[in-house]
Amino acid sequence: MSKLLAVGTLAYDAIETPFDRTEKTLGGSVSYIALAASHFNVDIGIVSVIGGDFEEKHLELLRSKNIDLSGVEKIQEGKTFFWSGRYHNDMNSRDTLVTELNTLADFDPKVPENFKDAEVLLLGNLHPSIQLSVLDQMHKRPNVVILDTMNYWIEHTPDELELVLKRIDVLAINDEEARQLSGEYSLVKAAKKILEKGPSYLIIKKGEHGALLFHQDQVFFAPALPLEDVYDPTGAGDTFAGGLAGYLTESRHVSFDKLKSALIHGANLASFCVEKIGTERMETLERKEIAERLEIFKTLTQCVIELD
Amino acid sequence: MSKLLAVGTLAYDAIETPFDRTEKTLGGSVSYIALAASHFNVDIGIVSVIGGDFEEKHLELLRSKNIDLSGVEKIQEGKTFFWSGRYHNDMNSRDTLVTELNTLADFDPKVPENFKDAEVLLLGNLHPSIQLSVLDQMHKRPNVVILDTMNYWIEHTPDELELVLKRIDVLAINDEEARQLSGEYSLVKAAKKILEKGPSYLIIKKGEHGALLFHQDQVFFAPALPLEDVYDPTGAGDTFAGGLAGYLTESRHVSFDKLKSALIHGANLASFCVEKIGTERMETLERKEIAERLEIFKTLTQCVIELD
Repeated sequence: MSKLLAVGTLAYDAIETPFDRTEKTLGGSVSYIALAASHFNVDIGIVSVIGGDFEEKHLELLRSKNIDLSGVEKIQEGKTFFWSGRYHNDMNSRDTLVTELNTLADFDPKVPENFKDAEVLLLGNLHPSIQLSVLDQMHKRPNVVILDTMNYWIEHTPDELELVLKRIDVLAINDEEARQLSGEYSLVKAAKKILEKGPSYLIIKKGEHGALLFHQDQVFFAPALPLEDVYDPTGAGDTFAGGLAGYLTESRHVSFDKLKSALIHGANLASFCVEKIGTERMETLERKEIAERLEIFKTLTQCVIELD
Repeated sequence: MSKLLAVGTLAYDAIETPFDRTEKTLGGSVSYIALAASHFNVDIGIVSVIGGDFEEKHLELLRSKNIDLSGVEKIQEGKTFFWSGRYHNDMNSRDTLVTELNTLADFDPKVPENFKDAEVLLLGNLHPSIQLSVLDQMHKRPNVVILDTMNYWIEHTPDELELVLKRIDVLAINDEEARQLSGEYSLVKAAKKILEKGPSYLIIKKGEHGALLFHQDQVFFAPALPLEDVYDPTGAGDTFAGGLAGYLTESRHVSFDKLKSALIHGANLASFCVEKIGTERMETLERKEIAERLEIFKTLTQCVIELD
């Protein structure tokens, strides 16, 4: 099996939505990424940091999904990264109430030996210097390097971010981040500028409005599944990225057509993530359910376009 | 050839966008609808009303596209419906500056004899009683009746609107109108409630975010083409509806699969409409350009979804 290495946060989240709230639930980008990627036939390793408060049951949950945790450093005297947010009624916007970096503040990622030859590397949203450090630790350049980032790094560490962009294949960001990174409002213009910065593929995530894939002069659109209820959007973007990375790792190569399918698989997994609070839905999700919903995605997207 | 009858407004518009402005340009729903539908092999007739100020060159433009104007009543002493609007910088929202109903205030639609047997009837956004009057004038119930409406009628004439909804096949409205008509925020829940009101098919238009098609328990998504520049969004929704109606008229029947293709054809035509101000782009659009862009829509939407 080919290997996927993902670096990102393990966290505890306190989430408030109009429907529910939780005081302390498993969160962090790499939790969602790894849970999503675990549905593909790949070896997954994660690089992250936790504090002494991180519960054994959550490590056990990840291990039970065959996720290799040898790259997870535990700082016994420290606390795990904590995030708290509140969603508005439309579920499309949220306020961050608390961000406690804790052990994440001094995160010095260590790639375990057995994943230094990973075929696919997913660099989750972190300081660009941490992302560069992980890239530098690899024995060889992975076949595919996927990057996530956010407005904070675009604004505060643009030079380091530019260095990372030169060394990746796929950048996955949201529409506002694409506009900020490019200085262009039109996403088509934004994509052109961003593709000049290094990545061969740009994925622009638009939440409930789906995701766009840009490559050279081509563009593809993957819709989000229209849902009766969105219970909690937390982690949907990371789940999308994890599904995408898992699919590409299993495929062992990257092309525009492979990425099209990868986007659909990512969108499919994300549609489950939002059905319950936190990682709850992803913890029990089964492959049969995923396959069934992929059939709905076929109906949703496929049609015969007849020319006149 | 099968016949499409469309009822709607002929208007003069004054449009301001961040890029351009025009004091008096051809507008109105049925101008855009008919110009879009004229690209299919169908006979098009329109029912509308104009004032003495309506210029012969604009009638000639429509006639040159083989659009039958025998249902257009000219009130010599009256003025043509006038609308003025200003778009904000993001082009997604606009302020209506002026609405002068003029001859539209007493519009009493008269369906010409030669279109009373039209296979497809498109009821553009007007008072529901006008829409009902057109339906009642048909010799036989058309194969397909398509309806557009807006928040004003949902709010002010709900009972008459409910009567129209019982007699149509396809309802095409935007997301906010769907929410208002159903009282549901979730578009999936909204669609369920609206389909119970009469139409077999519901199209929810989301502007730059594409359009959803609901039918029984099925859903299909047609993306909008991502564009470098949106020059003027006026008429895009009507162009979408006109393309959809033209395609269905040429097809001579309606099904979920036919409507999927119809949505793509509508989205394709709408992508041209926004490239210039008012109807300008639609006046010169050629079938070759349409066919070429349909190929881009194939790349945009089609992919092989492999199951694991």
